[in-house]
Amino acid sequence: MRDVDLNSDLGESFGHYKIGADEAMLDLITSANVACGFHGGDASVMHQTAASALKRGIDVGAHPGFNDLWGFGRRKIVGDSPQAIGDMLAYQIAAMQGMARAAGHRVTHVKVHGALATLAFEDRALSEALTWAMRTLDPELVLVCTPHNETERAARRAGIRVACEVFADRLYGDNGLTLPRSEPGAVIHDPAAAAAQALRMVREQAIRTVGGKVVAMPVHTICVHGDNPQGVDIARAVRQALQDEGVRLRPISQMDFQ
Amino acid sequence: MRDVDLNSDLGESFGHYKIGADEAMLDLITSANVACGFHGGDASVMHQTAASALKRGIDVGAHPGFNDLWGFGRRKIVGDSPQAIGDMLAYQIAAMQGMARAAGHRVTHVKVHGALATLAFEDRALSEALTWAMRTLDPELVLVCTPHNETERAARRAGIRVACEVFADRLYGDNGLTLPRSEPGAVIHDPAAAAAQALRMVREQAIRTVGGKVVAMPVHTICVHGDNPQGVDIARAVRQALQDEGVRLRPISQMDFQ
Amino acid sequence: MRDVDLNSDLGESFGHYKIGADEAMLDLITSANVACGFHGGDASVMHQTAASALKRGIDVGAHPGFNDLWGFGRRKIVGDSPQAIGDMLAYQIAAMQGMARAAGHRVTHVKVHGALATLAFEDRALSEALTWAMRTLDPELVLVCTPHNETERAARRAGIRVACEVFADRLYGDNGLTLPRSEPGAVIHDPAAAAAQALRMVREQAIRTVGGKVVAMPVHTICVHGDNPQGVDIARAVRQALQDEGVRLRPISQMDFQ
Amino acid sequence: MRDVDLNSDLGESFGHYKIGADEAMLDLITSANVACGFHGGDASVMHQTAASALKRGIDVGAHPGFNDLWGFGRRKIVGDSPQAIGDMLAYQIAAMQGMARAAGHRVTHVKVHGALATLAFEDRALSEALTWAMRTLDPELVLVCTPHNETERAARRAGIRVACEVFADRLYGDNGLTLPRSEPGAVIHDPAAAAAQALRMVREQAIRTVGGKVVAMPVHTICVHGDNPQGVDIARAVRQALQDEGVRLRPISQMDFQ
Repeated sequence: MRDVDLNSDLGESFGHYKIGADEAMLDLITSANVACGFHGGDASVMHQTAASALKRGIDVGAHPGFNDLWGFGRRKIVGDSPQAIGDMLAYQIAAMQGMARAAGHRVTHVKVHGALATLAFEDRALSEALTWAMRTLDPELVLVCTPHNETERAARRAGIRVACEVFADRLYGDNGLTLPRSEPGAVIHDPAAAAAQALRMVREQAIRTVGGKVVAMPVHTICVHGDNPQGVDIARAVRQALQDEGVRLRPISQMDFQ
Repeated sequence: MRDVDLNSDLGESFGHYKIGADEAMLDLITSANVACGFHGGDASVMHQTAASALKRGIDVGAHPGFNDLWGFGRRKIVGDSPQAIGDMLAYQIAAMQGMARAAGHRVTHVKVHGALATLAFEDRALSEALTWAMRTLDPELVLVCTPHNETERAARRAGIRVACEVFADRLYGDNGLTLPRSEPGAVIHDPAAAAAQALRMVREQAIRTVGGKVVAMPVHTICVHGDNPQGVDIARAVRQALQDEGVRLRPISQMDFQ
Repeated sequence: MRDVDLNSDLGESFGHYKIGADEAMLDLITSANVACGFHGGDASVMHQTAASALKRGIDVGAHPGFNDLWGFGRRKIVGDSPQAIGDMLAYQIAAMQGMARAAGHRVTHVKVHGALATLAFEDRALSEALTWAMRTLDPELVLVCTPHNETERAARRAGIRVACEVFADRLYGDNGLTLPRSEPGAVIHDPAAAAAQALRMVREQAIRTVGGKVVAMPVHTICVHGDNPQGVDIARAVRQALQDEGVRLRPISQMDFQ
Repeated sequence: MRDVDLNSDLGESFGHYKIGADEAMLDLITSANVACGFHGGDASVMHQTAASALKRGIDVGAHPGFNDLWGFGRRKIVGDSPQAIGDMLAYQIAAMQGMARAAGHRVTHVKVHGALATLAFEDRALSEALTWAMRTLDPELVLVCTPHNETERAARRAGIRVACEVFADRLYGDNGLTLPRSEPGAVIHDPAAAAAQALRMVREQAIRTVGGKVVAMPVHTICVHGDNPQGVDIARAVRQALQDEGVRLRPISQMDFQ
């Protein structure tokens, strides 16, 4: 049984506004993807989240998104040039590198947030803007993403290692991407169901779609969302199911990618 | 005659909003302090300004300020902890390092913008938040600031090199700081007058205040403001006056600091 | 026993970010002060909060603050002219009037939020900026504020009715204002203690300070904070205590002000 | 010859950032559409622009857009519900009504800005969100827009009067809308050419598209853009051409709409 990383998108609180149970999630996962202040988070939350990750010996990654606090990065913002998007991503990743350094930690990976990730999956120029930003700042950065799309292909072309990601708590459409949150049932709220799906994906090294398709892929990392009310319970159930199966949980930086 | 650096605060445009004649200023100065997206600027402007500086062989520095686009960083924002300020500064400096790297350049210095700089001059904890951020990210960073205040003292304690700065186009109060812009006559608009003041400060290695005091200080770098309508003319006049005097203009990174 | 209004600052959520248990609070209070999108809230939250207030037959007021989402309006932002502050307040109050109208309701009062309120208490020009904004938009608007300061005096001069406010869940300093939240014990978390304080203030028509001073004032309205974890319990305890005492709870618009 | 209104989008400056030559434009036009602080502008600029319009006896309208200072409202932001868009529009229009009142003026019309206007032209739900906002706040408000699209149809259904608008300084695509600014030649920079086009549109009561189509429409109002470097010259040339032709320039509020 191969190693698997358990990741979550954290650090989305800022100032007086709190989202998620970050400290509880950090006890369960092996890699934290930290919002970079554009769709959520702020410099202090980035610093503290990196410090919390370091204390637990887990990885910290940059989780950049659109400059959209009001829409939490889940609105598609269309009209910027790919270079402008690349600059915006480099800015956020570099800021995260700085806040990780402030905590004595380092950024090992990048996972794009929300609508920007969704747009990039189908947009070669956007995906190349991302890989440009990553290579510019640190060619050793690992990209965490769903495979079989423009983003993965751009990373392969750029020589960037890809950690193929599945979602424990989301259903998949027949295009191989997660169903939009607006679709009924798109988000799994039952910890047992999420754990069962995660385990099946690791065993099969594949996802199953709502239409019954099976899409083969290496499963390097499993995402559990921290802003669900059930996030912590789901993370605990997934972790337990994987450990019961004998799967070893390891941070991205300690895994081998073919 | 010692070497002198000529600096200006640039990169304050963003999106559709333009401030200053940056390209013309970059032809005249030897170090550019670039806004980091909080009080002005954006990721693309940071990238482009760093690229323009590199092409001319001049230095690029981070010019962080309050998160205050609406007040251009000139309003005092009171209530954050020193650690929060330090994190905010580290975030901006790190982002600037990333955008300089994107341009193939590197950040050599830091100069704090506007109201945050003014507050720090008289606040030991704020000044130490700044030096913490600088040392965390790169201990070789030079701090550009007016001397004889908490900020300079914090830098000395932290082992950070200080480039002592004077302003060609501003009058000084008897406290050794520039008069607030709201005071009549605080900003010098006549290029000849600014050039004469700059030259006198270099010759005397001192500033003169409106009350007639002479404050001795090493003059390492002279600031000319780019958002004045007369900014370019002032920069040209100051540069010419210094060159006529035989002063050598050099970027901060090529100067010796005692 | 005179009538008393029970008010709370609500509508501070926006987009994906939630604060407070607004629906539960709306069941207990008689006047809601709604954030206007500058330090918290957004247009839809304003609309919905006004609709919820209307459904319960309670008042809705504007709760404008600094343009400071990152500091929740609790940071002092210094440097704007009184006219700029007045414009900013008029903008927010007018927007709230529009969103109340969208819900079929109307704005009856104004209560300034956080650091802007604190600054105005001691600043005649700021307070007159506020009363200018209120008179410009609707001279019938009632001002909710702590009395005996520049803000109350400006309102009296402008012919604006004042609902004198006390806080059930905050200690008072000897200057007659609430202790800063940063002071230990400044915020009362025990519902019984808050209810006792509220009742005492209504009986005595006065506040008592931490130094033992008694400051007489008419108690027209009692504030309970909705963003405390104990906010709803405190509101319920205060309401119960007042009702047990035979105090009649009435919205601001239904009260007489001398 | 029928009356025509000459309008321009103004008040897009905020704080330290200036766009356009508003005072010069206000001398030439008969209706000003004022940015409402979301894609540009701020409360004080809104107040001052309304005051300047009143002084000249011309109309002031609300010019709401996406909450997108960084993209100047020209990026499409997709993902909000129509109700959220309607609330956002009502908020901005109400705020503009307040700032007009602060100046002793009143809002006579609404013109949606940038990408939001473009999206609404083809989106019935968005257009109905707009007409809901307008009717909620003031059923007498006139909508300024290009006709023959979902927005005009929604206004007709809602009983809102429509001022049909043409652009003096833009080419039209065969879909009857202005060509995107990214297309070469989309923006007319020559004052004489813009004046000739404006005059022809008034004479013919139609627009001509780049493909040679003639689209009949009543021409109630002609827009000249104030953020072009040539904006003032174009406005002057258009005004002169219309006056030479005997067309009477009148604010929207003084025109009859069939």
